[in-house]
Amino acid sequence: MTYCIALRLDDGLVFLADTRTNAGVDNISTYRKLHAFRPQADRVFVLESAGNLASTQQVLDRIEQDMADPETESLSTVTHLSDAALYVGRLSREVVEQHRGALGNGGSSTFILGGQIAGERPDILLVYPEGNYIRASDDRPFLQIGETKYGKLMLELAVESRVDMDDALTIALSSMISAARANLSVGAPYDLALYRNGSLELREARIEPDDPILHELQDLWIRQLLDAVAELPHLRLDDLGAHRQ
Amino acid sequence: MTYCIALRLDDGLVFLADTRTNAGVDNISTYRKLHAFRPQADRVFVLESAGNLASTQQVLDRIEQDMADPETESLSTVTHLSDAALYVGRLSREVVEQHRGALGNGGSSTFILGGQIAGERPDILLVYPEGNYIRASDDRPFLQIGETKYGKLMLELAVESRVDMDDALTIALSSMISAARANLSVGAPYDLALYRNGSLELREARIEPDDPILHELQDLWIRQLLDAVAELPHLRLDDLGAHRQ
Repeated sequence: MTYCIALRLDDGLVFLADTRTNAGVDNISTYRKLHAFRPQADRVFVLESAGNLASTQQVLDRIEQDMADPETESLSTVTHLSDAALYVGRLSREVVEQHRGALGNGGSSTFILGGQIAGERPDILLVYPEGNYIRASDDRPFLQIGETKYGKLMLELAVESRVDMDDALTIALSSMISAARANLSVGAPYDLALYRNGSLELREARIEPDDPILHELQDLWIRQLLDAVAELPHLRLDDLGAHRQ
Repeated sequence: MTYCIALRLDDGLVFLADTRTNAGVDNISTYRKLHAFRPQADRVFVLESAGNLASTQQVLDRIEQDMADPETESLSTVTHLSDAALYVGRLSREVVEQHRGALGNGGSSTFILGGQIAGERPDILLVYPEGNYIRASDDRPFLQIGETKYGKLMLELAVESRVDMDDALTIALSSMISAARANLSVGAPYDLALYRNGSLELREARIEPDDPILHELQDLWIRQLLDAVAELPHLRLDDLGAHRQ
């Protein structure tokens, strides 16, 4: 499967994606699912994808081709981030429609699109296979696609605690590790992108599977768990009205 | 949905189940999903259920009826825990079969059966709707049914760390809170049962939704998360070969 995360924080945006693709457990590959676009100096986009790899790649190719043609709507020409989301949604639908005869109802993809166009506030949007979109809510300003359940708690805690970007990245990575640990279809290397509000400039990096930070994070969580248990007042069964039988 | 947990530890068994049932989000109820049986002095069983509530209740009624009839196979008469699992699996199949005409392929349930029959080692088994079963593995000696993904990490850490029963109960409850927090279809009150190996006696209790332990645990996790982040060496993007675009 896939696990992609986007967080909208007070000072910027954090994107993190795994790279594992699979067609059955006996056919595992590594592909980028996080793509950055800076078609003009006044705008920057990050696109994360989950779903059919062939459809995703065709959408990415269409995005590149459209940017090369100034007469066509593209990430270069859209006025608002929401227009960019609708544009990606339209491409996604067109690609799926093109293969409908062969793929039936399969082959669709879901995207997270984030970034900023100068003059607008930075944002993250989830683009559905149907071509429409939602923004991240103000109460839970993050989005996930793919194998989302294992690592959701950490993201919720992060946004509730209003952490800064560096801490958010660490927490996103912890969330990723949780998903990867539980599900073989999520795996390193991980691609990340950080966007500081107003900078119109992305910082990108890849975290390789042998990066010590991954083991450090995992060890830390185990230690924290044990500390947490040690700190807790033990459940007192008698207080809970426990009875024997 | 449902979330039920069973852990097999060095010194005993821990069972925890939520009580929320739903037929759509506008029809929520509270039902026990954790049931204890002590049909003879030489044996004790805990049965946890996920799936169709009507089927589950009919299975429970059949279990009670069979125990009342000494001529019939029942939890009183089975020789091994694995026979008890096969017995529950048979009832489960029979109940679903009885309603097949009306329910089609729906209506099935999955169970966790745990406990001890004197002379055998205590164990936990997962009974599939098909009527067969698996034991918890030695490497990951826990079972989950229902909404299992949100709280899996904590259970893995618990068994890896070889915690004792009290700590395991706390961790199981944390796992439950994680699931309930993320998914409306899991909710308090929570039923728990503890079995100390060889005791042939269960301790049971219910944790009500307003029990302060639930809030304490949740607060603790938030605090531990923030501590964890503070302790971590921050991700250094430059070390990761970050580049700008």
